[in-house]
Amino acid sequence: MKDNKNLSKKITIAVDAMGGDFAPQQNVLGAKKAIEKDKNLNVLLVGDPQRIKEHLNSRQERLEVIEAEESIFMTDSPLQAVKKKPNSSLVVAANMVHQHRAKGFISAGNTGAMAAVAFLKLGRIKGINRPGIATLYPTARGRSLIIDAGANVDCRPMNLVQFAQMGSIYMKNLYNIDRPSIGLLNIGEEESKGNKLSIKAYHLLSAHQDLNFVGNIEGHDLPAGTCDVIVCDGFTGNVALKLMEGTAKLVLDELKTVISSNVAGRLLSLSIKANLTKVSRKLNPDSYGGSLLLGVKGLAVVAHGNSSSEAIGNAIIGAAKAARQEVTRKIAEQIGN
Amino acid sequence: MKDNKNLSKKITIAVDAMGGDFAPQQNVLGAKKAIEKDKNLNVLLVGDPQRIKEHLNSRQERLEVIEAEESIFMTDSPLQAVKKKPNSSLVVAANMVHQHRAKGFISAGNTGAMAAVAFLKLGRIKGINRPGIATLYPTARGRSLIIDAGANVDCRPMNLVQFAQMGSIYMKNLYNIDRPSIGLLNIGEEESKGNKLSIKAYHLLSAHQDLNFVGNIEGHDLPAGTCDVIVCDGFTGNVALKLMEGTAKLVLDELKTVISSNVAGRLLSLSIKANLTKVSRKLNPDSYGGSLLLGVKGLAVVAHGNSSSEAIGNAIIGAAKAARQEVTRKIAEQIGN
Repeated sequence: MKDNKNLSKKITIAVDAMGGDFAPQQNVLGAKKAIEKDKNLNVLLVGDPQRIKEHLNSRQERLEVIEAEESIFMTDSPLQAVKKKPNSSLVVAANMVHQHRAKGFISAGNTGAMAAVAFLKLGRIKGINRPGIATLYPTARGRSLIIDAGANVDCRPMNLVQFAQMGSIYMKNLYNIDRPSIGLLNIGEEESKGNKLSIKAYHLLSAHQDLNFVGNIEGHDLPAGTCDVIVCDGFTGNVALKLMEGTAKLVLDELKTVISSNVAGRLLSLSIKANLTKVSRKLNPDSYGGSLLLGVKGLAVVAHGNSSSEAIGNAIIGAAKAARQEVTRKIAEQIGN
Repeated sequence: MKDNKNLSKKITIAVDAMGGDFAPQQNVLGAKKAIEKDKNLNVLLVGDPQRIKEHLNSRQERLEVIEAEESIFMTDSPLQAVKKKPNSSLVVAANMVHQHRAKGFISAGNTGAMAAVAFLKLGRIKGINRPGIATLYPTARGRSLIIDAGANVDCRPMNLVQFAQMGSIYMKNLYNIDRPSIGLLNIGEEESKGNKLSIKAYHLLSAHQDLNFVGNIEGHDLPAGTCDVIVCDGFTGNVALKLMEGTAKLVLDELKTVISSNVAGRLLSLSIKANLTKVSRKLNPDSYGGSLLLGVKGLAVVAHGNSSSEAIGNAIIGAAKAARQEVTRKIAEQIGN
């Protein structure tokens, strides 16, 4: 079977070991978790060898350290970071893909810099004007993909159509969904609803034969999981994702407060806490790993700034899966022609 | 004391009895609840007398039925609704304010039509280019106000400044917050972050002496309650509010599922369900009643389409409170000059 064959395919992924709030420790531990789970995976850890090796055993198979002298900080402007820090861990990690030493690269650092590096080092796929960040998130029905989650704050209607095409290819290939349903994030169901961008995007999406466009969806449809793919500009998508995470956390915290302020609740707290933990885990975005920057020639994976080793590990596993399914090549073939 | 004096002030509020998913029943029951709580409140129920009276006792003090022959539907375009249905319950309710028979009016019907009616019948306050919908929502710290929640899908930077001014006056007068903190909803903390609208709005807000502008806030800050007032365009605000409600519902539902699929959970279910109900109630937007359309000359209150009698009742009480605090006059005085 194709899937089994793909699972046995050897893959190398480069990791920016210095990017993220808990780098390099959590990045290195995450890489170790990933290669433990996936026996056909190699990881290149890019960064300060001294600091990386603090978290490695003397000899670790399928893990290679690649030296990079500099780091890019959250305060660096994206373009400057790329141009002024050619020896930074982020740029060197992208170079591994450019030089065909890795199939993809991952960073939990500065997202803007990451998108700029991917764009400049790997180039964009023909037919795609703007690469978009595709983020999976948990829903009542399972999971959905939102694109764009923050790469393009001001969009044109055609960008949203391309996001829909790329998101559709992603969900088809990574989640075996035959005709992924596409929803346009808007403020009402009717086609007349929305801002200038969404009204025009609605018409373009409706006219597109290859897309399974189901129409406008509203804020509450996101957690409900009404659609497989949600398209929107990167401003709205970024606000939406952070809101969902924050609200889920608030509700769980509220519940913990109510329970611990209640005598019966305190007595029953062990069992209740186990239930809360189960729900927290199900809703935890870390389990989905990173977000793909779709539309560039190569796999570029954005991980959360506060990524734990679990999140980094899952992002690496996810990148390997996307590489084996050749998502980038399929986007280029289906859109670029 | 001023507050006590205000509480004893007689106030009349007009209610569009025919607007909303459960009209007229829930609207009439909501009006009854409101006058029961507030002994100095009169309500005008505007709509089909026959259908309204089905839910009234023979004689109800401080409730008056005002006949209106037509209704505006969700499918009616806002401007057409106003012009072609001058005898609709919504337009007649607004006329009650225009004719000084009521201090404010409430509708749970078509929001776009409601905003258009308020704009055309009452006029806008001098100095306000675009009225904005101000919605209170529950947070980890209490409650915050988001403006605009959907009246203006495409905004200019100056609109956001006016939303901030109006929101500030609202929170100061209705919640006794001395210098309400204002946050700009954005995708990053740094002033360079965001789309064209938010970058320009950031600079205008920073330069404004009278506002307690605390800078950019992100999606997760909304449920956390970081600021008293959140300003954004109506597209983002509408998506954000529906998302918060939907996510809170999802988490509570997930928890119920986990508990009922667990033997210990089932045994303990009574106590746990009581806790869930407590949290649900705290997070229930119905308890905040309606949203105010700020910037028009008169009180116009938008209630949720699916308003229960509780929500309608709270919207009426909220409208009476805003009327007693003379929010509209204060906005006109502080901004219009």
